Amino acid sequence: MLIVKKFGGSSVANKDRLFNVAGIIAESYQQGNGVVVVVSAQGDTTDDLIAKAAEINESPSKREMDVLLSTGEQISTALLAMALEKLGYPVVSLTGWQAGFYTDSNHGNSRIKKITAERVEKELDKKNIVIVAGFQGLNKYDDITTLGRGGSDTSAVALAVVLHADVCQIYTDVDGVYTADPRIVKDAKKLDEITFDEMLELASLGANVLHNRSVEMAKKYNVNLEVLSSLEKKPGTMVKEVTSVEKMLIKGVARDNDVTRLSIIGVPDVPGIAFKIFSVLASKKVDVDIILQSIGREGTKDISFTVKRDNKQTAVSVLNDALATIGGKELVCDDNVSKVSIVGSGMQSNPGVAAKMFEALYEANINIQMISTSEIKISVLIERDLADRAVNVLHNKFLGE
Amino acid sequence: MLIVKKFGGSSVANKDRLFNVAGIIAESYQQGNGVVVVVSAQGDTTDDLIAKAAEINESPSKREMDVLLSTGEQISTALLAMALEKLGYPVVSLTGWQAGFYTDSNHGNSRIKKITAERVEKELDKKNIVIVAGFQGLNKYDDITTLGRGGSDTSAVALAVVLHADVCQIYTDVDGVYTADPRIVKDAKKLDEITFDEMLELASLGANVLHNRSVEMAKKYNVNLEVLSSLEKKPGTMVKEVTSVEKMLIKGVARDNDVTRLSIIGVPDVPGIAFKIFSVLASKKVDVDIILQSIGREGTKDISFTVKRDNKQTAVSVLNDALATIGGKELVCDDNVSKVSIVGSGMQSNPGVAAKMFEALYEANINIQMISTSEIKISVLIERDLADRAVNVLHNKFLGE
Repeated sequence: MLIVKKFGGSSVANKDRLFNVAGIIAESYQQGNGVVVVVSAQGDTTDDLIAKAAEINESPSKREMDVLLSTGEQISTALLAMALEKLGYPVVSLTGWQAGFYTDSNHGNSRIKKITAERVEKELDKKNIVIVAGFQGLNKYDDITTLGRGGSDTSAVALAVVLHADVCQIYTDVDGVYTADPRIVKDAKKLDEITFDEMLELASLGANVLHNRSVEMAKKYNVNLEVLSSLEKKPGTMVKEVTSVEKMLIKGVARDNDVTRLSIIGVPDVPGIAFKIFSVLASKKVDVDIILQSIGREGTKDISFTVKRDNKQTAVSVLNDALATIGGKELVCDDNVSKVSIVGSGMQSNPGVAAKMFEALYEANINIQMISTSEIKISVLIERDLADRAVNVLHNKFLGE
Repeated sequence: MLIVKKFGGSSVANKDRLFNVAGIIAESYQQGNGVVVVVSAQGDTTDDLIAKAAEINESPSKREMDVLLSTGEQISTALLAMALEKLGYPVVSLTGWQAGFYTDSNHGNSRIKKITAERVEKELDKKNIVIVAGFQGLNKYDDITTLGRGGSDTSAVALAVVLHADVCQIYTDVDGVYTADPRIVKDAKKLDEITFDEMLELASLGANVLHNRSVEMAKKYNVNLEVLSSLEKKPGTMVKEVTSVEKMLIKGVARDNDVTRLSIIGVPDVPGIAFKIFSVLASKKVDVDIILQSIGREGTKDISFTVKRDNKQTAVSVLNDALATIGGKELVCDDNVSKVSIVGSGMQSNPGVAAKMFEALYEANINIQMISTSEIKISVLIERDLADRAVNVLHNKFLGE
């Protein structure tokens, strides 16, 4: 079998962890598998590098930031290779560009355009274990790019695609995908299987298990994806197109604190306002999530929406500039919010799910500020302090014994 | 003018130093010069990375070591670029491979084979300040290599050669080349000029100002080289082919503690012994410096020589293996030695220099263990504890008021 394994930053954070990971890799290699490994930067390396940059320049160019941050993964690959050398295995480390990752030029959040995997294949032919720096690539100008946070998952899945790997195993510090964050919900249960679509909703809803671009790519190319623990030796959660028949109405409850609500108060109740607001945000690459538009009164209305906290400053500055053009009175921000969501393919054929969710929140006296739904998920925006309780209440309602 | 500037690790060690360097670069750029900058890794970064590797594997492959160490310079280039961005200058950082450095495959101590400087030239055409990671390149397999310690000087001179730069300025924490290390000799004087040959002898004799490969290259291609301070704004020392006429008999006194003496006792006094010893050392790339062979007595003789301390382990292990073949009785090491040297083109036409040197050491009651001479230098091996005194005594004799 050809296996792509991905280890995150905490899995390679120190000497013991590196040798633990080296042991996992060695075992798989000894079973006769071809093994390609994608690693992230060690522990807090990326944060340390960001702090180092901030000391010099609070708004450095994204190009130079990528030059800086890409060193984190390069260090990990070299150290992991050294650990495998120490154990006596043939191994070679490759940077993103050596592994043939080509991306677009959107520094800091690039997308992979193609992978020319000749070098990786050549090393596999030589029976080498191949350690690849995740999260990074090269644009058409031969400048170093990074895929954005969590991009190593995407690197791993993309490599699995071009190498036609039999499975892509994403190792984390949890042993799989849970029905809720076990730190929040005591009796959260591990799922044996989950569909790509469910995983996508969970990833983008803050479940923090897999980077959602990696799941999208796995779905598109139908890569067998497994989420498992680097610390405990047991099966993880398989992510696949269709899961075996089961009666679970929902698969999980997710909480996302990385969210800010913005409201533009008193915009004219005329056509084209929403277009103006969201095109100006799109021009700055600010993704908007839940949108709520009030009913017009006295010729004006309010428009509220959520953005990621990272994008708050950009959104506020661009909207303040545009406020006159839009004709709005005031821009209001609220950071004290969380998005709580339930996810499950099962809800498609069960119309009562939303009502059941709202009932549970009502019983717990939790006020819903905004609502957003898709085929397989329902999200509500609530006060942040109530989020953990909301997750527990919903988990108990849908997934309790 | 097109200027290549090189800044060492201590010159970019922290935020203040980085902005100090950025200021020097900016001033030169504002004067209308094209500026290419080569930087080393910050402060102790390289040592920290070496320690990190040692924790994992006490003898990692040199290939992986290069992958690891090359990140140090990459971090420096990004941070320096960010500092220049902060000051409002157009700037771009380039890794060794982006700057087109191609080397042989001798990982850890590679030699530059060629530089394809198109990218650097393109950035200069765009009026960008170009920051290049020193010390690193790429071999023909597209693997990252490093030039060995101090290789950033060589990177800078090599870039100056291919770019036909008007001058290559090497910034250090001293303001030029001195007649002796000012930490050892109080009244050491700064030299305005020194020849390549003199500088070469001083560099290889432990003066620690310029990496000797960089001086060799500057001599070969007649690059105008200047050594100057990154901390004080004043002229440094120009290194050139011929210095203006002056009456200085010698230019400097150097001390080198990075030396170990090895002696092979009781080898047969027959032809071919020296060949055997030094070819076995050469096969392990151990450079031998001063060599002393005793007069044969009772059919045996002793052979002593010095090697760099880094090479001691390699030399000892290869010689112990070869001891039987060579027919020697015993291998003896002595670390408690220093090499003290006087250097100057002036001594070529002044036969009394050696006598004057030995007289000064005799007057100070310092015993000479070994002697080595070249056209423009005389070195003696003495007990390490006496080295600083020897330097002072010689400086006073030749360069005192």
